[in-house]
Amino acid sequence: MTEATQLKRREKLTKADIEAAAERLKNWGKWGPDDEVGTLNYTTPDDIVRAAGLVRMGQVFSLALNYDDKGPQGGKTKFPPVGRFNPVHTMLRTGTDAYSGVLDKRGIRSADDLVLFPLQAGTHWDGLGHIFYGDHMWNGYDCRLVSSFGAAKAGIEKTKEKMIGRGVLLDIARHAGVDWLEDGFAITNDMLDACAKKQGVVVGRGDHLLIRTGHMEAKWASGSWDGYPGGDAPGLAFETLDWLQEKQVAAVATDTWGVEVRPNETDEANQPWHWICIPIMGLTMGEIFKLDELAKACAGDGTYEFMFIAPALPITGAVGSPVNPIAIR
Amino acid sequence: MTEATQLKRREKLTKADIEAAAERLKNWGKWGPDDEVGTLNYTTPDDIVRAAGLVRMGQVFSLALNYDDKGPQGGKTKFPPVGRFNPVHTMLRTGTDAYSGVLDKRGIRSADDLVLFPLQAGTHWDGLGHIFYGDHMWNGYDCRLVSSFGAAKAGIEKTKEKMIGRGVLLDIARHAGVDWLEDGFAITNDMLDACAKKQGVVVGRGDHLLIRTGHMEAKWASGSWDGYPGGDAPGLAFETLDWLQEKQVAAVATDTWGVEVRPNETDEANQPWHWICIPIMGLTMGEIFKLDELAKACAGDGTYEFMFIAPALPITGAVGSPVNPIAIR
Amino acid sequence: MTEATQLKRREKLTKADIEAAAERLKNWGKWGPDDEVGTLNYTTPDDIVRAAGLVRMGQVFSLALNYDDKGPQGGKTKFPPVGRFNPVHTMLRTGTDAYSGVLDKRGIRSADDLVLFPLQAGTHWDGLGHIFYGDHMWNGYDCRLVSSFGAAKAGIEKTKEKMIGRGVLLDIARHAGVDWLEDGFAITNDMLDACAKKQGVVVGRGDHLLIRTGHMEAKWASGSWDGYPGGDAPGLAFETLDWLQEKQVAAVATDTWGVEVRPNETDEANQPWHWICIPIMGLTMGEIFKLDELAKACAGDGTYEFMFIAPALPITGAVGSPVNPIAIR
Amino acid sequence: MTEATQLKRREKLTKADIEAAAERLKNWGKWGPDDEVGTLNYTTPDDIVRAAGLVRMGQVFSLALNYDDKGPQGGKTKFPPVGRFNPVHTMLRTGTDAYSGVLDKRGIRSADDLVLFPLQAGTHWDGLGHIFYGDHMWNGYDCRLVSSFGAAKAGIEKTKEKMIGRGVLLDIARHAGVDWLEDGFAITNDMLDACAKKQGVVVGRGDHLLIRTGHMEAKWASGSWDGYPGGDAPGLAFETLDWLQEKQVAAVATDTWGVEVRPNETDEANQPWHWICIPIMGLTMGEIFKLDELAKACAGDGTYEFMFIAPALPITGAVGSPVNPIAIR
Repeated sequence: MTEATQLKRREKLTKADIEAAAERLKNWGKWGPDDEVGTLNYTTPDDIVRAAGLVRMGQVFSLALNYDDKGPQGGKTKFPPVGRFNPVHTMLRTGTDAYSGVLDKRGIRSADDLVLFPLQAGTHWDGLGHIFYGDHMWNGYDCRLVSSFGAAKAGIEKTKEKMIGRGVLLDIARHAGVDWLEDGFAITNDMLDACAKKQGVVVGRGDHLLIRTGHMEAKWASGSWDGYPGGDAPGLAFETLDWLQEKQVAAVATDTWGVEVRPNETDEANQPWHWICIPIMGLTMGEIFKLDELAKACAGDGTYEFMFIAPALPITGAVGSPVNPIAIR
Repeated sequence: MTEATQLKRREKLTKADIEAAAERLKNWGKWGPDDEVGTLNYTTPDDIVRAAGLVRMGQVFSLALNYDDKGPQGGKTKFPPVGRFNPVHTMLRTGTDAYSGVLDKRGIRSADDLVLFPLQAGTHWDGLGHIFYGDHMWNGYDCRLVSSFGAAKAGIEKTKEKMIGRGVLLDIARHAGVDWLEDGFAITNDMLDACAKKQGVVVGRGDHLLIRTGHMEAKWASGSWDGYPGGDAPGLAFETLDWLQEKQVAAVATDTWGVEVRPNETDEANQPWHWICIPIMGLTMGEIFKLDELAKACAGDGTYEFMFIAPALPITGAVGSPVNPIAIR
Repeated sequence: MTEATQLKRREKLTKADIEAAAERLKNWGKWGPDDEVGTLNYTTPDDIVRAAGLVRMGQVFSLALNYDDKGPQGGKTKFPPVGRFNPVHTMLRTGTDAYSGVLDKRGIRSADDLVLFPLQAGTHWDGLGHIFYGDHMWNGYDCRLVSSFGAAKAGIEKTKEKMIGRGVLLDIARHAGVDWLEDGFAITNDMLDACAKKQGVVVGRGDHLLIRTGHMEAKWASGSWDGYPGGDAPGLAFETLDWLQEKQVAAVATDTWGVEVRPNETDEANQPWHWICIPIMGLTMGEIFKLDELAKACAGDGTYEFMFIAPALPITGAVGSPVNPIAIR
Repeated sequence: MTEATQLKRREKLTKADIEAAAERLKNWGKWGPDDEVGTLNYTTPDDIVRAAGLVRMGQVFSLALNYDDKGPQGGKTKFPPVGRFNPVHTMLRTGTDAYSGVLDKRGIRSADDLVLFPLQAGTHWDGLGHIFYGDHMWNGYDCRLVSSFGAAKAGIEKTKEKMIGRGVLLDIARHAGVDWLEDGFAITNDMLDACAKKQGVVVGRGDHLLIRTGHMEAKWASGSWDGYPGGDAPGLAFETLDWLQEKQVAAVATDTWGVEVRPNETDEANQPWHWICIPIMGLTMGEIFKLDELAKACAGDGTYEFMFIAPALPITGAVGSPVNPIAIR
């Protein structure tokens, strides 16, 4: 990736730019005053039928990292801690209990287990209750509806039959001819267009858009997750919000911790793209998606579309959800 | 449901019957000495392509109960407690924090949360490490491989790209003309055959078989989950193990706590069907599936097959997994 | 307990009564603007020396219920749920692992465990960050200092060297000649005085006052905790706030779920005594204390004072703490 | 600390040495076949009365580190992970909820919280179910009694009225004239004797012995806990087991992660001192005790004995317990 192909780094965003975007991109009320799923509404039953038609070889790809103590939350971070840690899995009964004979009084030898899951610790969806704009959340709901009792509006359980339809991968790293984009690399609208064109795919209404930066592979190559959670990363430029709005995608996900480019394009807000994407546009986003193998397969036959099935776990009132996103080709 | 249609209650099973079944139905080594997914191997890529062809209307059904403190683990049980409880969801940051201004130093107003999840508390898959036969687990592995460190073999994460293919619903309750089967009602092979025939569907290799008893609707009607976890229930007769083996199904799931009939058909073992199904046959089973709405739709147009997508969450070393199973018609 | 000795049930409290008490009893600033422990300041080093002098026989009493799944949170409640449940204890490594040989690669055979602890599930102290009066907490601090990040002021860890000194038991049930006081029985100032007089003990500055109602024994006798968490109970009348203020006790604890009488003496607030006790007076209170055996010993020799040691676990930012309170005679 | 005063590093221990110690020091049956508390039996009521007599100034010292995400489990370790992590504290209701008005429907503004506690993550007692010798635990009980259901024998709850009596501090670091002993420094019997003599204190039956190495201060000085959990450390030599047996101490605790010297004095076992101390001698041990301030006070007036109160939290079936140990002078 040479300087020439990377974006001309423009002026830093100001708070006024963010506010203007909020006005320009606000989808509140677009699906009625009671809507709780936002852009997931874009996908129609017909889209799902057509997406099923993309299953030609029966190839299945899980886009989830395994959930365990090797996960990305073990990496060092300069971001103020947010209470996320790798999932903690403990056993409630074991095969060693069985072997030891202590289960036989129960008449069955069984193991059981539990997990403690920060919902955004690994591969996950951000729910529409995850980010607030001022005192409001998606669709203009009062942010106080997300209290210690959970999200009374737009809880992730409302999406239990969503995130299903056509998936499209834009493999920006491969398109740029690199193993991974560098930290701080901002993906622009022009790059999205160029990549889609070269890949021969048209992103449109109701699609689930996956964008590969290669950032995860960079961490694997380094042998450590340090800097992955909350650190610098390649990612979407602020201007892509307009592009995503115009394309009417249902959801967007990347292989990074936070989708948008870091360091951010502004000193006046943290994660400015999030400020607009979730509460203003109602656009569901996925993070920490494992895209390497799917990308290899897509590059192999030049087909970057597939059936995508990744509904959230219906955890009532949650503002995020672990997910095992499935792409089928 | 008259006496005439219910099974002739035969002699109670003995330990010898269970041992004979173990010999007769043992699939150890069938997919090689290193196999960790058992009957999920039955489903081929071609099956997945054909299953996608069943998506005709773009109708999506989530077969998961919401995960929250209203779940079935709140019900009273006479079964010795096994450490399962309803998922506990707590917030790490909230919209009330946002409203109160305490998040503004972070430059972003966001909520976050975590959940404590007994993996088999709600709608879930049993992993192949869940049940042992003597000192062995699926494929003849030593049961001590499932220790406090988790399942070193046949962990649920091995199925992250499985449980995808054709789904078939056998609605035994509707077939029997009742809202729900009674507790203790044992579903026999003849009933499975008769129901399939009447529904015009043929269960076969690689299918994901869902069997509806109506037991969940019975609990809803009663206004309480009492007796659901570990209590009496309708369910599969022991003989269905042979039927499932012959049909070569990939997985089987029901709307009950434990798939098999309770009280069990024997006094010499607890959950004898489990003893064979998981460790001997390597047959993945799902429990607490919510089948009411899917069943209504199937009955509506007489089509009982659909695309089924329900991979486990890849929790490393787990012996079970919550899941949001999806049926698409 | 006859009508004659029970209090003359007076008019129900109004919001104005509560507000008047808040004005009358407000201790804000009494120990300086930075104080975080309130009435625990009353106890001096000399008091601790004198308390040690009460140890005459070396008799030790734990006033804690064991923490396990048999605890009071399993009881039914008509109080809106507050997210408390019995502690969940799970093993991280076991003796069955040891027996099975799977630990030997570590060179040591050991067990380990963890617990999930709602901090006020069992015997516990309420921290001064537990209750707010309007938008303020103890000492006039802004209630927003207790956010999802924990209590930035008056966290329970500030009391790690407190709750140590003289303990005094007022055994109201025994004084009233009953096994336990009835639900709704309000203990008045006159009763406290009469009981202390009969017991030959004078409650004073810096004391840790334990008040026995017998309510826990009532639940044991019933064979169930139903109604204990959040249900009706005997307890302190609202007027006792003035009595406790005058006596300058360091802390107060009872054998009930919530110290004060339930149903409450008002329809205009929930737990009105709490409204004043914690945020206005800065008086630390303990709940679910097991007083039966200590009471028996005190009655046995007529000595109702003892050394009391019950510092909180220093969980940073917590608003409560499990505790194993110790009385030594 | 010069070479001359450090021990002559003797031959490495062999498995045979450990086995010989097991025979020599075995206390099984000493307090009857049903005993579950071991050397805690050494302390008598009279000892407790005398210990109370050591309270002369009313000075209180908490020997606990605060439990939070700054704790020692955040340090890097070369020891194979054992599932311990810093306590996770989350809020169930907050002052920001209160401020936001979402609690007012409850009639009370309150905060509540929970903690997830690996029981040996911070300052804690090892229970007698924590370590096994072969297939046995303390008093000869079968190690399978510590299963996934918890410790059926010698659970930490059995000590709820123990660990109370005389405390004695041996400040080895100060005695050696250093801020802290170096990693790998083995404290010998001679050093214990010399330190006690110099301090003018006699260690005896029923005492609770605290031994300061300064290791915690070394980590504070380094600004990181790296190497503290499971890393190299000063600590007790294997031979001190005989010394402790002879002195008949009730319990022993240090300011390190694992009491005994690391690297261990053998290549044939991990933590060989533990192998004997807990299952063979039944000697309760404490780890991660914060001794700096107590040590300063003791040095200030030359008095190294005090009243000590540190009963475990009665978590049923636990093999360890967080504790806030209290020393009163």
